[in-house]
Amino acid sequence: MNGIAKKSVNIHPPFNFKSGAVFNDPITIVYETLGTLNAKKNNAILVTTGLSPSAHIASSLEDSSSGWWEDIVGKGKSIDTSEYFVICVNSLGSCFGTSGPSSMDPRSGKRYRLSFPEISIEDVASSIKPVIDELGIETLKAIVGPSMGGMTALSLIKQYPNITNDLVLISAASSSRPFSIALRSLQRSMITSDPQWKEGNYNQDDLPLEGMKHARFLGMITYRSPTEWNKRFGRKLIQNIAERADLFGNRFQIQDYLKRRSDDFISDFDPNSYLYLSNAIDAFDFAEDSDDIEGAVTNLDLNRVLIIGVEEDYIFPFQCQEDLYNAFSAQKYSVELLKLPSINGHDSFLVDHENFGSALAEFFK
Amino acid sequence: MNGIAKKSVNIHPPFNFKSGAVFNDPITIVYETLGTLNAKKNNAILVTTGLSPSAHIASSLEDSSSGWWEDIVGKGKSIDTSEYFVICVNSLGSCFGTSGPSSMDPRSGKRYRLSFPEISIEDVASSIKPVIDELGIETLKAIVGPSMGGMTALSLIKQYPNITNDLVLISAASSSRPFSIALRSLQRSMITSDPQWKEGNYNQDDLPLEGMKHARFLGMITYRSPTEWNKRFGRKLIQNIAERADLFGNRFQIQDYLKRRSDDFISDFDPNSYLYLSNAIDAFDFAEDSDDIEGAVTNLDLNRVLIIGVEEDYIFPFQCQEDLYNAFSAQKYSVELLKLPSINGHDSFLVDHENFGSALAEFFK
Repeated sequence: MNGIAKKSVNIHPPFNFKSGAVFNDPITIVYETLGTLNAKKNNAILVTTGLSPSAHIASSLEDSSSGWWEDIVGKGKSIDTSEYFVICVNSLGSCFGTSGPSSMDPRSGKRYRLSFPEISIEDVASSIKPVIDELGIETLKAIVGPSMGGMTALSLIKQYPNITNDLVLISAASSSRPFSIALRSLQRSMITSDPQWKEGNYNQDDLPLEGMKHARFLGMITYRSPTEWNKRFGRKLIQNIAERADLFGNRFQIQDYLKRRSDDFISDFDPNSYLYLSNAIDAFDFAEDSDDIEGAVTNLDLNRVLIIGVEEDYIFPFQCQEDLYNAFSAQKYSVELLKLPSINGHDSFLVDHENFGSALAEFFK
Repeated sequence: MNGIAKKSVNIHPPFNFKSGAVFNDPITIVYETLGTLNAKKNNAILVTTGLSPSAHIASSLEDSSSGWWEDIVGKGKSIDTSEYFVICVNSLGSCFGTSGPSSMDPRSGKRYRLSFPEISIEDVASSIKPVIDELGIETLKAIVGPSMGGMTALSLIKQYPNITNDLVLISAASSSRPFSIALRSLQRSMITSDPQWKEGNYNQDDLPLEGMKHARFLGMITYRSPTEWNKRFGRKLIQNIAERADLFGNRFQIQDYLKRRSDDFISDFDPNSYLYLSNAIDAFDFAEDSDDIEGAVTNLDLNRVLIIGVEEDYIFPFQCQEDLYNAFSAQKYSVELLKLPSINGHDSFLVDHENFGSALAEFFK
């Protein structure tokens, strides 16, 4: 198997959701792979994604467009596809081929919308297992989970304790804290309050754009850091300030930047997918069946664990990564905690290729 | 003059706004006082407010309702009205009696709305001076400026270098940084995107409530701190979670709390007033006419300066207070910097009466 780009697995019904819902329609999981799975099938690295990325992690022969981790994954890069077989799965509930609220309901011929069952991180994780099985892989070399993907990775090892040798959690958490729950609640409310949302039954040509833009604007603010913006923007004025449309028009470059970036994003991502996955991040609690995180990491068959975080992460603060480290450490796993000097906040792993690349290259060398 | 509650001063036109606008209508500034101005008129403390409070700082004989700083200001309290004559002014542009976009335009008989000139912090400050003059006060004992009020206080001492002996800046800044500019820009956009805003010409019976609620929700998130919410709420579920209306209904107590508090607030505050003052906070730069803050604090006639801040202030981070301290210190003022161990973020001065009360009592004893 070599350099095959987008593939998919169909999960035969029923799919049992964590909520108790039994879903009798087939579920499709889209994934991409890079590199070559070796004969022993022991060189596979699974990357579980954050909320918004697709399975297109890096460019390939089949799809030469840049992927969301282009600078980290590839031949000769930190996760070296000359050596490793990299699998990236589009999460259940997302909108890039994998089943979710924006998929077509085969019975009605319309999109599922809110009739799609509530999705949990546990469901995202269990829907990935058939991909691993399809590829004939018994044990992964590693799972690498950034952001929400770290929660998915934690759920995978909990549900399938022998699924991987190594585990890399990046800017992740065992559960969301109230500050980030509050931020995501506001983002969801901005979308569901948009009159165009229409209880999830929006017209595809008339999306709840204002709500999505505002949700993304808040995301852009809180996924990055004050330190980065002090350096990049400070109080620099926009060039055409004399042409400011009105009293409340943009005055500063930071405003202009966030507006442009928010407007760009919203066309890509399905509003209901966003709501479902945002909700799943709030609800996930790795330790819900045990006294604490330490209790949740007993009896895992893990060789090495690497936990990476940065300062000024408002989504999953470094304390979350420390808590995970302490739990793995107390249970005598071989675990390392890295606090990288990135200034890009929660999104550092997507931006600071130098620091993250070095850390991952060192781990996988 | 003793215990007189709500009073007002009419500023005779024209009022020259910083923007260049010359306003030919009379401007009314509402204020309240507590305590007794002594014969020498040297025991007056002016409190300049944050964005949303009225002039009603504490209960009085005339108005027994609790004020916004009830636990700090009063007889025998940290700012002791047995000793001091406390003046609190409702800021220009606000909506509690003082002139602003929600006031009546005497010519049209309608509210000014966006025809009211753009308001700057400098305008807020210069509109306070007539109150001091009206009271016959030449030099204030102190100006106490929390949050936006700290900016107003800085502008007052810049415009009138002999106006006060002492200066207390609380959770304030010489200018806004890009992170908080971004937050306020989003808040303004949430209001101006609300269809009920109608370019500022909303019906008073049909306010842009969704936008105001969302702006307040974001305010509630960012005026407090993750540490406070970890302690108060953690991941505690709401009681009636089984009755959750839908997939995206509240699950956690933090969500319920923020929703209730946001819904409460919005009925009080005029949307256009909010927009005008929010915009003024972004634009203010105490050091705009000098090389830096140090350059802006030369030649002030100040006896003592106290600068107070806390950890986890997302609006004006402690670095802002350090920058102010360093500037006053470099210019050899008698200046003290206090970092209080409050966990309530930017709003600590409104909530943590113990720490703030002690600090202010010590300063004013």
